[in-house]
Amino acid sequence: MDTAVTGTAFQPFDAHYEARCRALFDRQPINRTLGCRLTVVRPGYAELEMPFDPAYTQQTGAFQAGVMAILGDNVGGFAGYSLFPPNAEILAVEFKINFLAPGIGDLLRAVGRVVRPGRTLTVCDVEIYGVTRGVPKLCAKMQQTAMRIDRKPEA
Amino acid sequence: MDTAVTGTAFQPFDAHYEARCRALFDRQPINRTLGCRLTVVRPGYAELEMPFDPAYTQQTGAFQAGVMAILGDNVGGFAGYSLFPPNAEILAVEFKINFLAPGIGDLLRAVGRVVRPGRTLTVCDVEIYGVTRGVPKLCAKMQQTAMRIDRKPEA
Amino acid sequence: MDTAVTGTAFQPFDAHYEARCRALFDRQPINRTLGCRLTVVRPGYAELEMPFDPAYTQQTGAFQAGVMAILGDNVGGFAGYSLFPPNAEILAVEFKINFLAPGIGDLLRAVGRVVRPGRTLTVCDVEIYGVTRGVPKLCAKMQQTAMRIDRKPEA
Amino acid sequence: MDTAVTGTAFQPFDAHYEARCRALFDRQPINRTLGCRLTVVRPGYAELEMPFDPAYTQQTGAFQAGVMAILGDNVGGFAGYSLFPPNAEILAVEFKINFLAPGIGDLLRAVGRVVRPGRTLTVCDVEIYGVTRGVPKLCAKMQQTAMRIDRKPEA
Repeated sequence: MDTAVTGTAFQPFDAHYEARCRALFDRQPINRTLGCRLTVVRPGYAELEMPFDPAYTQQTGAFQAGVMAILGDNVGGFAGYSLFPPNAEILAVEFKINFLAPGIGDLLRAVGRVVRPGRTLTVCDVEIYGVTRGVPKLCAKMQQTAMRIDRKPEA
Repeated sequence: MDTAVTGTAFQPFDAHYEARCRALFDRQPINRTLGCRLTVVRPGYAELEMPFDPAYTQQTGAFQAGVMAILGDNVGGFAGYSLFPPNAEILAVEFKINFLAPGIGDLLRAVGRVVRPGRTLTVCDVEIYGVTRGVPKLCAKMQQTAMRIDRKPEA
Repeated sequence: MDTAVTGTAFQPFDAHYEARCRALFDRQPINRTLGCRLTVVRPGYAELEMPFDPAYTQQTGAFQAGVMAILGDNVGGFAGYSLFPPNAEILAVEFKINFLAPGIGDLLRAVGRVVRPGRTLTVCDVEIYGVTRGVPKLCAKMQQTAMRIDRKPEA
Repeated sequence: MDTAVTGTAFQPFDAHYEARCRALFDRQPINRTLGCRLTVVRPGYAELEMPFDPAYTQQTGAFQAGVMAILGDNVGGFAGYSLFPPNAEILAVEFKINFLAPGIGDLLRAVGRVVRPGRTLTVCDVEIYGVTRGVPKLCAKMQQTAMRIDRKPEA
């Protein structure tokens, strides 16, 4: 039973899944504000990075905990969205995050994996790392639920 | 059994609890960056506001979900911190947040209440509202755990 | 902003909501096994009790933490189900629970309140008390999501 | 970044970790009541099984969701406890669980892995499977926090 469930291969709806993810990412103003980049998109999997920025720190000089939550919620959304059909939208339902180490480093890297893709609800497993000189250290772990909303085709 | 547990009267450690909270708030760069204000501090209770800012929105024009998590985590921390003794620090352990309505309005208001103050762990109940022309609408609900770390007095 | 959101008055679908809840409760074998009673049902609100039973304790003689989770998940489900229309079913989506005090007493009482009733997802706030000689002490707090599934009417 | 963090090799405090886990398991009456067996214990890892029992089902004939929470909370506790020193006790702090598929099968198998072992708080990743004719199907996923309490040595 040592086989991890996460990381299972998923089938995207069509070949354009990455383009759809990148188009959605570009339509989110917060990504530009925080300097986020969507570095990897695969079916049911995404990675996102944000450079260290003292503007988003708390009293210790580390990132405020909620910043890791922003990245985690975002990357989990893209992991799920990569499996959606073209006319579907994604809605944040809820998440839970544990903080394991201070959010420090040259950049934060968030990694999202779909655990269960559903017709309505998608559940993701998300890890957030502080990366210092290329070495990642796990600083937060999130379990997340998102909802798929199918837009009605226009008449 | 209809009496809500939250909102129970708590005793602060001493009369300076609000000053300690405000000093901590001012030492967190992210609050200036987001334009947050700590509007209310009472023993085991805090309120925080952030004006609407399109820089932190997602594709629909509403606040990105994680922004509500930042405010919620922060305000819960201050609700807990208001009951700490002078030499204690606060550490984010974990939280869980449900998104109930789009994060829109003239401002976001986060309200934190201590449910259980502990020697080591403090649990808070947090609500985040979108406020439009003075009318609050609940848009997220969080249950949060924070940890108290007592600094050793210097020799 | 001190007004608690929970406890807001909800409108049930029709006058038979309590009968529907009690019928569902009676169809769940686990309730008989644990000796649970559905003591209160109101629109968007429910209470459930289970007598202390050493068969469900852990090494300290208190209830195992998961037992509080069973009661909490169940009572939140009934709070939500009380607002459902006749042909809808309820599905557990997820919950998060904090343990605040040992689960001890003459009985456990779980109290569920709907925070947001949705067409698809309902979010509840749940408290679990250990009751000793009539005095309740909060021992766990849960935030829960359930899903409404509308059955197709038979042809 | 595809390397899963979970499953990392951990060092137990001494060679008796499994015996300590099994002794604790045997002191928990609920395990006998539910027919649970602690099938695997390794440093930072545990597996637990419970045979299907209609006494713990809900209206659909599947296990009530909270039963998966009992097993998950328990197995995560043992994964964490396996790394504790001899005089330490374990306390449930909180967990969050998503239900992914009905809890059905010949037995339920819960698998717990330590994500971060801490001096005070240990965070675990837990999966619960319904196993039918030897084939496991993921039915719930949990993220859990437990606390280590060091007993004072007796004078």
